Amino acid sequence: MAAERGFFIGRFQPVHNGHVQLIEQIADEVDELVVGIGSAGDSHTVENPFTAGERVMMVTKTLESLPITIYAVPIEDLNRNAVWVSHVQSMAPRFDVAYSNNPLVVQLFTEAGVEVRSTAMYDRDHLKGSKIRQLIIDGGGWQRYVPAAVEEVIQEIRGAERLRRVDERDGT
Amino acid sequence: MAAERGFFIGRFQPVHNGHVQLIEQIADEVDELVVGIGSAGDSHTVENPFTAGERVMMVTKTLESLPITIYAVPIEDLNRNAVWVSHVQSMAPRFDVAYSNNPLVVQLFTEAGVEVRSTAMYDRDHLKGSKIRQLIIDGGGWQRYVPAAVEEVIQEIRGAERLRRVDERDGT
Amino acid sequence: MAAERGFFIGRFQPVHNGHVQLIEQIADEVDELVVGIGSAGDSHTVENPFTAGERVMMVTKTLESLPITIYAVPIEDLNRNAVWVSHVQSMAPRFDVAYSNNPLVVQLFTEAGVEVRSTAMYDRDHLKGSKIRQLIIDGGGWQRYVPAAVEEVIQEIRGAERLRRVDERDGT
Amino acid sequence: MAAERGFFIGRFQPVHNGHVQLIEQIADEVDELVVGIGSAGDSHTVENPFTAGERVMMVTKTLESLPITIYAVPIEDLNRNAVWVSHVQSMAPRFDVAYSNNPLVVQLFTEAGVEVRSTAMYDRDHLKGSKIRQLIIDGGGWQRYVPAAVEEVIQEIRGAERLRRVDERDGT
Amino acid sequence: MAAERGFFIGRFQPVHNGHVQLIEQIADEVDELVVGIGSAGDSHTVENPFTAGERVMMVTKTLESLPITIYAVPIEDLNRNAVWVSHVQSMAPRFDVAYSNNPLVVQLFTEAGVEVRSTAMYDRDHLKGSKIRQLIIDGGGWQRYVPAAVEEVIQEIRGAERLRRVDERDGT
Amino acid sequence: MAAERGFFIGRFQPVHNGHVQLIEQIADEVDELVVGIGSAGDSHTVENPFTAGERVMMVTKTLESLPITIYAVPIEDLNRNAVWVSHVQSMAPRFDVAYSNNPLVVQLFTEAGVEVRSTAMYDRDHLKGSKIRQLIIDGGGWQRYVPAAVEEVIQEIRGAERLRRVDERDGT
Repeated sequence: MAAERGFFIGRFQPVHNGHVQLIEQIADEVDELVVGIGSAGDSHTVENPFTAGERVMMVTKTLESLPITIYAVPIEDLNRNAVWVSHVQSMAPRFDVAYSNNPLVVQLFTEAGVEVRSTAMYDRDHLKGSKIRQLIIDGGGWQRYVPAAVEEVIQEIRGAERLRRVDERDGT
Repeated sequence: MAAERGFFIGRFQPVHNGHVQLIEQIADEVDELVVGIGSAGDSHTVENPFTAGERVMMVTKTLESLPITIYAVPIEDLNRNAVWVSHVQSMAPRFDVAYSNNPLVVQLFTEAGVEVRSTAMYDRDHLKGSKIRQLIIDGGGWQRYVPAAVEEVIQEIRGAERLRRVDERDGT
Repeated sequence: MAAERGFFIGRFQPVHNGHVQLIEQIADEVDELVVGIGSAGDSHTVENPFTAGERVMMVTKTLESLPITIYAVPIEDLNRNAVWVSHVQSMAPRFDVAYSNNPLVVQLFTEAGVEVRSTAMYDRDHLKGSKIRQLIIDGGGWQRYVPAAVEEVIQEIRGAERLRRVDERDGT
Repeated sequence: MAAERGFFIGRFQPVHNGHVQLIEQIADEVDELVVGIGSAGDSHTVENPFTAGERVMMVTKTLESLPITIYAVPIEDLNRNAVWVSHVQSMAPRFDVAYSNNPLVVQLFTEAGVEVRSTAMYDRDHLKGSKIRQLIIDGGGWQRYVPAAVEEVIQEIRGAERLRRVDERDGT
Repeated sequence: MAAERGFFIGRFQPVHNGHVQLIEQIADEVDELVVGIGSAGDSHTVENPFTAGERVMMVTKTLESLPITIYAVPIEDLNRNAVWVSHVQSMAPRFDVAYSNNPLVVQLFTEAGVEVRSTAMYDRDHLKGSKIRQLIIDGGGWQRYVPAAVEEVIQEIRGAERLRRVDERDGT
Repeated sequence: MAAERGFFIGRFQPVHNGHVQLIEQIADEVDELVVGIGSAGDSHTVENPFTAGERVMMVTKTLESLPITIYAVPIEDLNRNAVWVSHVQSMAPRFDVAYSNNPLVVQLFTEAGVEVRSTAMYDRDHLKGSKIRQLIIDGGGWQRYVPAAVEEVIQEIRGAERLRRVDERDGT
């Protein structure tokens, strides 16, 4: 019998401990998990500083100790909501259930006949991409909120420097 | 001699009674009318809840009792104003005159040498897409502002449910 | 109860009597029919001389005497087979059954869970787009193979002249 | 030995005297200069009224008296920061150094290993595209802030009329 | 010190034993390997039957016993050779060396300053995507040429049935 | 009174003496000339080895001694014949007359109401892009067929080496 495969999508700018909590809970329910890396074409902005490849590295290294097979798949924006589910399905290994609390994602998968399950809650006050990016810009203690593997990736790619630069005002 | 053909474009999210008033007036002046359905690639957002195909259905069913031939043609956004007229002309049956009060549309057709005529006024306080969408979300009496055929389409596709869902805040 | 709606796609370069035969048979089985106009972005080549809008006009005028509602919808190529069904579904009114003998189309709709029915056969020796286009280029008797409305459209847009010109060899 | 070639990018909506000052200083340092015309696909908006071709004309005519070879090259937005440098490099003659004070541009060229130099400062209170566009809309004395060649181009294309029209509110 | 990371790209239609031989040899030389899945947007044709996601599954399952970290990353065609290296670099974790014998790939990486190494030879008479696809269509013994994990994936997705169908001639 | 401006398009892979002959003749008839560089996004193939920027450099340097203003403008393929004229017009300074013997180009400009003039003939037996590219690959005497400036550009970018490499068969 085929394994049950789940799907979870995020922008992962960057991967943080809240993502890890969610994914560990999902990993208890499925045999394999596809992690979609959304807005894969975006990078080098304050909102989306890291490339898809950098985020593939963060997801893979963070989750490689999990006991299930993880697929980290970049998903480029199409700006066509009506074909988004098919686009995801073509880039991802076939999956049985999607995990999401995002209303649009829930609606699109539901209309396409894909089962959707809610994800657990976690401490959104601290574990939020926008807050962690601001801490990186300010040189604050962002490292506590992300897995060690993510800290290493950000150092390897000089991510803090990039983020600070693209946050500067244009001085022309 | 070839028939005079008009062109009118809107987003039709959804078709409402104001559109019908305008189109009935245009129908008195031309032999055939091309109705362009703008932002055809957009759907499943609060601003643009309905797909192009759903809007084709609304336009066609609403206008099929008119005595002239109606063409309902989806027009995808190209985000290139300078080629927009050609794009419209390639998707639409050849037309002689465009009806619009939108300054950008008027300017683009004028620069391209296409005759433009203003459209009549109607009660914009109530007959406005954004107001009708809000009424649908709130469960208010939106039905009085749209043709019966549109109400049926929205029911067939469970449009109110979709609109309410995509209006929810992200609860991740 | 919602009407049964069918879907049929072709390139319609140009609409010919074989198409009409097929569509008349389909019209006996469904309440409404969506006619998809494929490769909608192509035009001005020997293979695809007519624009989407010109083909919308051919389809609409040819079929307006049929007793069912017809929707003529341009479908642009996406060159992504895996999202093609969703793309079609977003541009077309919702449909219940697709009519096709094309193996790729059958496979894509089948994988997407859409019912597919075969279309009837007709005289493919004479009723074939490529043959009719060659007759137009050669100035032969192409008119007998197309509906009267199509002949009128081709005259209105000076289609024979266009086809002959794009068939010329580059004389630089 | 190959000449040193510089690169400078702007939106040039329109070319103004501040651009000319900057470029004259750059022209002292390099043998040839590639002027990239950014957001080349945008036009007919208040923010980006002029087409790429109109801006090619402004740049070329304004700079043709400079003693170095100038290349005016439209650069369409790709909305993929990570490939932007390659895109620019493929559209432009090979260059050795990029001139920019824009933090994103500096970061992207730096990551790609291209030398970046700052540009000089000039009177940003008056020489700013947005202010000059507003003067054109208001019929104020914009001509003093742009080269004579730019004034002529704007007249040839009836640019003030276009800008005023697209600034109007929708009167539907 | 950062690990040495390699890059290898193929279409993997499907993954076969020749790919495995190559990748095992590369795995001896690097600490981590990015496997690019080319023409990621193509599927459902005789030349490219499997979706990117199906090929991600083949690559991941085939290589999960290797002692190094493997990243399987879909790479969509851009049809812009001059930006292809940047596109790959943005979708892949940063890599130090690319493995390829394909002249275009070698040229593009070389012009971009990326080190390129040749890959080993293997039995191209039998281990070739086109031959294996033909065996699948003919119902021949294709299983011996692919890893067991690939055979399972093809069965899970009913890949042989798909391939046979899209190989049929159009029977309209 | 506004100057008369002409338009001439080619792929210029590479610029050769035949192009120069044609353009010199056109230059006698107009005050300014826009040279469109077609298929601007293509490069690094046997058919289209040089990037748009490299071809901008060839055109500009070859023609800078002409007594009229020359604009060299890259034109990316849109694969939408019906909007091609508008696309060209948006990237180019406004022009009055297009020079071409290509039947498709003649037809598209004619349908758009742009005046078209034929170009003169030249020795097509030797002055043909495909022949010159083959000579470069074979190491034959290609230099006699191109302007000196083009020879220099090809040397600066190591174009012969690139062309030979992309002509190799895949040796995987």
